[in-house]
Amino acid sequence: MYELLDILGTMAFAVSGALTAMNKKLDPFGVFIIAFVTSVGGGTLRDILIGRTPVGWMLNLNYVYVIILGYFLAVVFRKKLDRFRTSMFLFDTIGLGVFTLIGLEKGMETSLHPVICIALGTMTACFGGVIRDILCNEIPVIFRKEIYATICIVGGIFFFAMKGLNVPKDILYLLTSVLIIGIRLMAVIFHWSLPALERK
Amino acid sequence: MYELLDILGTMAFAVSGALTAMNKKLDPFGVFIIAFVTSVGGGTLRDILIGRTPVGWMLNLNYVYVIILGYFLAVVFRKKLDRFRTSMFLFDTIGLGVFTLIGLEKGMETSLHPVICIALGTMTACFGGVIRDILCNEIPVIFRKEIYATICIVGGIFFFAMKGLNVPKDILYLLTSVLIIGIRLMAVIFHWSLPALERK
Amino acid sequence: MYELLDILGTMAFAVSGALTAMNKKLDPFGVFIIAFVTSVGGGTLRDILIGRTPVGWMLNLNYVYVIILGYFLAVVFRKKLDRFRTSMFLFDTIGLGVFTLIGLEKGMETSLHPVICIALGTMTACFGGVIRDILCNEIPVIFRKEIYATICIVGGIFFFAMKGLNVPKDILYLLTSVLIIGIRLMAVIFHWSLPALERK
Repeated sequence: MYELLDILGTMAFAVSGALTAMNKKLDPFGVFIIAFVTSVGGGTLRDILIGRTPVGWMLNLNYVYVIILGYFLAVVFRKKLDRFRTSMFLFDTIGLGVFTLIGLEKGMETSLHPVICIALGTMTACFGGVIRDILCNEIPVIFRKEIYATICIVGGIFFFAMKGLNVPKDILYLLTSVLIIGIRLMAVIFHWSLPALERK
Repeated sequence: MYELLDILGTMAFAVSGALTAMNKKLDPFGVFIIAFVTSVGGGTLRDILIGRTPVGWMLNLNYVYVIILGYFLAVVFRKKLDRFRTSMFLFDTIGLGVFTLIGLEKGMETSLHPVICIALGTMTACFGGVIRDILCNEIPVIFRKEIYATICIVGGIFFFAMKGLNVPKDILYLLTSVLIIGIRLMAVIFHWSLPALERK
Repeated sequence: MYELLDILGTMAFAVSGALTAMNKKLDPFGVFIIAFVTSVGGGTLRDILIGRTPVGWMLNLNYVYVIILGYFLAVVFRKKLDRFRTSMFLFDTIGLGVFTLIGLEKGMETSLHPVICIALGTMTACFGGVIRDILCNEIPVIFRKEIYATICIVGGIFFFAMKGLNVPKDILYLLTSVLIIGIRLMAVIFHWSLPALERK
């Protein structure tokens, strides 16, 4: 179940990366690289920072195959994907929840402080998009208005609060992902975003 | 003393990163990330390249807390910070000296060649700003005119020259930081900068 | 022979990086950093991802010296280098072949799957240029039109196909580099490039 969600999330991130790259008129190789880093870039950065090398996707090729599949789907159906906007958004939101949990888990496995684990969860879920935006020569969208990262931080804090209350692991994971997915859905429905911090 | 200077430098770098990000009209999350990478990005890159993982700030949370404090100060006083321009500049200059020494030290601990140690010192002091500029979609300012990095290189060469003369460690550290801080002050007072290398 | 080609490739990449940086009107420090990352950035990224740290150029200073030499040649002869355009292009193409082979080799030494080895070969040969373009605030040229990366992938597939047929190592290396260099020459002569994937 958990793995199925991970795969759905990975594919959704790959498809969304491919779409961004095609909107920038990149060539097939560029589109593939952007799909790839959007999908596994956050987890790769996490693995590098905590020293889990070779990084995850080099040891588990399922990620690579899923991204290749997502890439081909995005390229073949590139003129029709707008019809699947809602499904894509749902998968992407599932990815946000699952990737945050995976990041939290890797941080705990490395015996890091909860504050660092929350940073790793947020990084896993959000920094693929940051690398995508840098490669596409844009200021990362989550630094400008998207509430995306804030949701992961809230989810991470909730996770450790519940863990402190000895909530059983299965329920803890379920509640955290439901919380993240729920806030994300509400954020989109009610157009929540963070205001810019201006100096004048 | 040494640790106090490290903290002052870390905070100055965080504040200056936050100011840059606010000038770019980023949201609170974006401002925080830019403050964070400006402050510890150089040391993080150094740790990754030499294989000291998990990277420094994941194991010593004092950095994280100092950055959070610097971030809040910068956000709360964002309309008044220009008054503290001189103090900020002094702290930033102290950071330049201390961070260079920390980088040199980590290189020697890893038994690397002096040339590589000097590169690591320069990276520790200057590459947080490089990552900040990339995330803000600018060509890094130290690649264009700032004499910043050159000062660190000169400081590093001086360090190994003195070390070869068996200058005691405390005096060696003091002299190197005074040299770096002194050149930096003169560079600003006399408007020193490197000319662009043009091809026509 | 093999090492001589590695050095020629490293220098060609350094010179081409320095030229790009001078066209962007960077200062001498910026030009040096761009020359450096263009030359060893791909291999550095590879080493970080597979956990070979300290990264290659920190342990073998020959790379550093060759890059410094290439940098000075590029700076001193910057107004005359267009005359050596053909030699430069040949060295650069040799670099493409040799760097791909080095990447494949490091992947096999780390016991990684052939698909990952091919990714590492491509990364070693092409991602120095990607980092150069990001630092110069451009969308990487190999994501937009250059057929560069595709040639490395084709070379990598050929390498493992021949290896499966038990072709002796020396011949395997020779054939793969001849193939990569040959396709690259033809790509330039016949103006091969990948079309952009557009959505409308």
